[in-house]
Amino acid sequence: MKKTSAFLLSFFILSMISAFQFLPLKEAPKATPPNIILIFMDDLGYGDLSCYGALQYRTPNLDKLASEGVRFTNFLSAQAVCSASRAALMTGCYPNRVGISGALFPNAKVGLNPDETTIAELLKEKGYSTGIFGKWHLGDRPEFVPTKQGFDEYVGLPYSNDMWPVGYDGKPTADTNRRKRNPFLPLLHNSDTLQEIKTLDDQAKLTGIYTERAVSFIKKHKKEPFFVYLPHSMPHVPIAASAKFKGKSKQGTYGDVLMEIDWSVGEIMKTLKESGLDKNTVVIFTSDNGPWLNFGNHAGSSGGLREGKGTSFEGGQRVPCLVRWKGVTPEGIICNKLTSTIDLLPTIANICGTKLPAKKIDGVDILPLLKGDMDAAPRKYFYYYYRRNNLEAVRRDDWKLVLPHEGRTYEGQVPSNDGFPGKAPENNPFPLALYDLRRDPAERYDVKEIYPDILAELQKVVEEAREDLGDDITKRTGKNVRLSGVIK
Amino acid sequence: MKKTSAFLLSFFILSMISAFQFLPLKEAPKATPPNIILIFMDDLGYGDLSCYGALQYRTPNLDKLASEGVRFTNFLSAQAVCSASRAALMTGCYPNRVGISGALFPNAKVGLNPDETTIAELLKEKGYSTGIFGKWHLGDRPEFVPTKQGFDEYVGLPYSNDMWPVGYDGKPTADTNRRKRNPFLPLLHNSDTLQEIKTLDDQAKLTGIYTERAVSFIKKHKKEPFFVYLPHSMPHVPIAASAKFKGKSKQGTYGDVLMEIDWSVGEIMKTLKESGLDKNTVVIFTSDNGPWLNFGNHAGSSGGLREGKGTSFEGGQRVPCLVRWKGVTPEGIICNKLTSTIDLLPTIANICGTKLPAKKIDGVDILPLLKGDMDAAPRKYFYYYYRRNNLEAVRRDDWKLVLPHEGRTYEGQVPSNDGFPGKAPENNPFPLALYDLRRDPAERYDVKEIYPDILAELQKVVEEAREDLGDDITKRTGKNVRLSGVIK
Repeated sequence: MKKTSAFLLSFFILSMISAFQFLPLKEAPKATPPNIILIFMDDLGYGDLSCYGALQYRTPNLDKLASEGVRFTNFLSAQAVCSASRAALMTGCYPNRVGISGALFPNAKVGLNPDETTIAELLKEKGYSTGIFGKWHLGDRPEFVPTKQGFDEYVGLPYSNDMWPVGYDGKPTADTNRRKRNPFLPLLHNSDTLQEIKTLDDQAKLTGIYTERAVSFIKKHKKEPFFVYLPHSMPHVPIAASAKFKGKSKQGTYGDVLMEIDWSVGEIMKTLKESGLDKNTVVIFTSDNGPWLNFGNHAGSSGGLREGKGTSFEGGQRVPCLVRWKGVTPEGIICNKLTSTIDLLPTIANICGTKLPAKKIDGVDILPLLKGDMDAAPRKYFYYYYRRNNLEAVRRDDWKLVLPHEGRTYEGQVPSNDGFPGKAPENNPFPLALYDLRRDPAERYDVKEIYPDILAELQKVVEEAREDLGDDITKRTGKNVRLSGVIK
Repeated sequence: MKKTSAFLLSFFILSMISAFQFLPLKEAPKATPPNIILIFMDDLGYGDLSCYGALQYRTPNLDKLASEGVRFTNFLSAQAVCSASRAALMTGCYPNRVGISGALFPNAKVGLNPDETTIAELLKEKGYSTGIFGKWHLGDRPEFVPTKQGFDEYVGLPYSNDMWPVGYDGKPTADTNRRKRNPFLPLLHNSDTLQEIKTLDDQAKLTGIYTERAVSFIKKHKKEPFFVYLPHSMPHVPIAASAKFKGKSKQGTYGDVLMEIDWSVGEIMKTLKESGLDKNTVVIFTSDNGPWLNFGNHAGSSGGLREGKGTSFEGGQRVPCLVRWKGVTPEGIICNKLTSTIDLLPTIANICGTKLPAKKIDGVDILPLLKGDMDAAPRKYFYYYYRRNNLEAVRRDDWKLVLPHEGRTYEGQVPSNDGFPGKAPENNPFPLALYDLRRDPAERYDVKEIYPDILAELQKVVEEAREDLGDDITKRTGKNVRLSGVIK
């Protein structure tokens, strides 16, 4: 080797080393606030993902989300029924505070009051592009639709996918009430009907349609901050999976549907990576309430928790929740602290630097938990309301006091095994009971006799709830209940 | 820069690059077969680690083990009581096959038959150094002690830590039976008594003593393959934590004890790292049975599963299991497949390249699951025997058939809140019931009426169990039951 070429080589090597040294340095952080993707399931139970114990199908993309972020084990839906739970998600309030209860039927005169501030409205004001792809269920009258509540674009169903004039098997139903009340399901694009959902085959396409629309929206808005709300219609009955997933799981149609949902999550994550948005996007995955157990093998699993949808026991309200924010959430941590759907609004507000709604909200900022602060415990108590305004239970820390009330029970019922519902009695009496959820998450062992001090403390929480929001069971009027939107 | 020095520099840089290139290459894999560390808890329930949902204390070292290895969610102890479970662990057999049932009392005439082959004996034959540091409980007569069953060194208690003439609070007990039957607990080193355990303060030192002995053993044998069996006495009642952990958790003494166990796991892992054995060591963590629920806040949690210790419901038998083998187990995966304590022996045999015992065993090799093969399902069925030979349930895949039997129940009982046991009735009748564990891990909904085909298939499994091992309930004699060791 000649000296000159050696010199050139040495120069070349030095340059390479220098270049190499600088490679690991990332470009300076963008000023763009993080994108938010909020995936919301319908009737998905606490035990329905493989990372929460599901058995006969796998959810690898969701498990990956868990292993790259935070998996919550005490995340409560605000109320164990569809519209109420969604009103709470959108506003950060208990649903009874904003006057929404139950599941709204087609052409209902009630909807989320446009005077309430939704997550979408907060983010819109901050310059976010906002899209909803899936089930709204907070009013289908023109005053209440997503485009009036902060969303730029809407593709989806206005309410639940069983609110159609067809049976759970996709065949004509003998139920004249269902036939009269429900038109075919309109798949809407803003206020236009794209298509009517008339058959199970149509239902089977919903997951794919929502996913495709969400992916397009992300790609279109990749240079601006965006909020994608993806409230799937599945796995609410009638369940159906597309041809690609039919028969793919070992747990029948329910497993197939979950595999397709997992595929959908994979598509979203792939799109984020390909668009260079992997890091600056917060992905949240959760559910509106627990499984509708009397639908037997067309329903999910509460993972062993007591009861299911339509009850204030843990199986009705405790749902999976995964949050991934690359570079911020530690990888694969488990958060066992008390948290709820209503906490998402103030947390997103903090993450995105928006102000909070002007009116009182119930959510607390759980960002410290997302950052892995294991000592943080932002939520001290939780009120379990059901129906219009029935206070059925309260929780303080890991103690739960169930108040005397009448409610649905799945105990002692034989669920169906063909997609048709078994009957779950509605007015079962539940007595006063204190549960130590630390040792008894399934609410089996009433310990009020041996913990009189804890009982007294929880009764104070009950009193605070009644003072604030009232209680139909004890006919108490609360101070701070606001009205839902009503068409006169 | 002169050309010569430039040449030297270039030569220097090239050398550095070459050196650097070779750095990542590890030295060639040693021929040494992997070390095995088997940590076995006493009465630790399915819900007792933070990675399985524990609430008021954290187990960061165990959670790390989970995030670096495999976390099992359907791992069954072979029987929900101490000696039986340990006989199964040591032999890879259902405990009734080797004639061990219940919990052996001090000076019992029965022990694990020395004719059976233990994990320690298999590994000893392969040249492993073998040590047990903790509770043996497979016979305290000289014929049955660990040093006669394949272990080179033994430091620990011969049986349960409540088999002493003292109350659960460490004060004198009025129970004359307990006082007469039980001497003070001998902390043994091989056949010598190192110390008598007479007080709760003595009990509080056990976790530390076992850990220290295990750490010393690892350091001493770091150049040879070793098997460390670390069967802790805690969190079996009477529970006690050392001064360093007293009052450290938010869940009283039980939480303190778990935090100390977690510390112990951390010490083991630190020792492995410091000794360069991090990679070539398989670490297994599990429990002998579920929580002893009538001890109230001195017991753990079944994580919502039905019943607890001393029952064949899932809360009695399903236990946490974590396995970490760096470079082999994928990081942070969850395995939901049916597996059991009895599968550890054949799996360890495969990992370490030993032969299997000459006599029939019941365990299956689950190494494919440890390697992350999600399609593997090595265990097809499981027999739930209790007491001497009562067939109380069978499982095939994720279906469980509970056979009519009488057993302990914790339902309807008020557990104590001071470490003293509440009474759990022993002869509660349980009827025939079929449970779909996919959707009902808590065994609440009997579905035999709607799944007659599955019922018929599980009854075949029952028939096979009775043919093989017999059944005291139906007075059937099995073909293949062997005798325990008995002193005449």
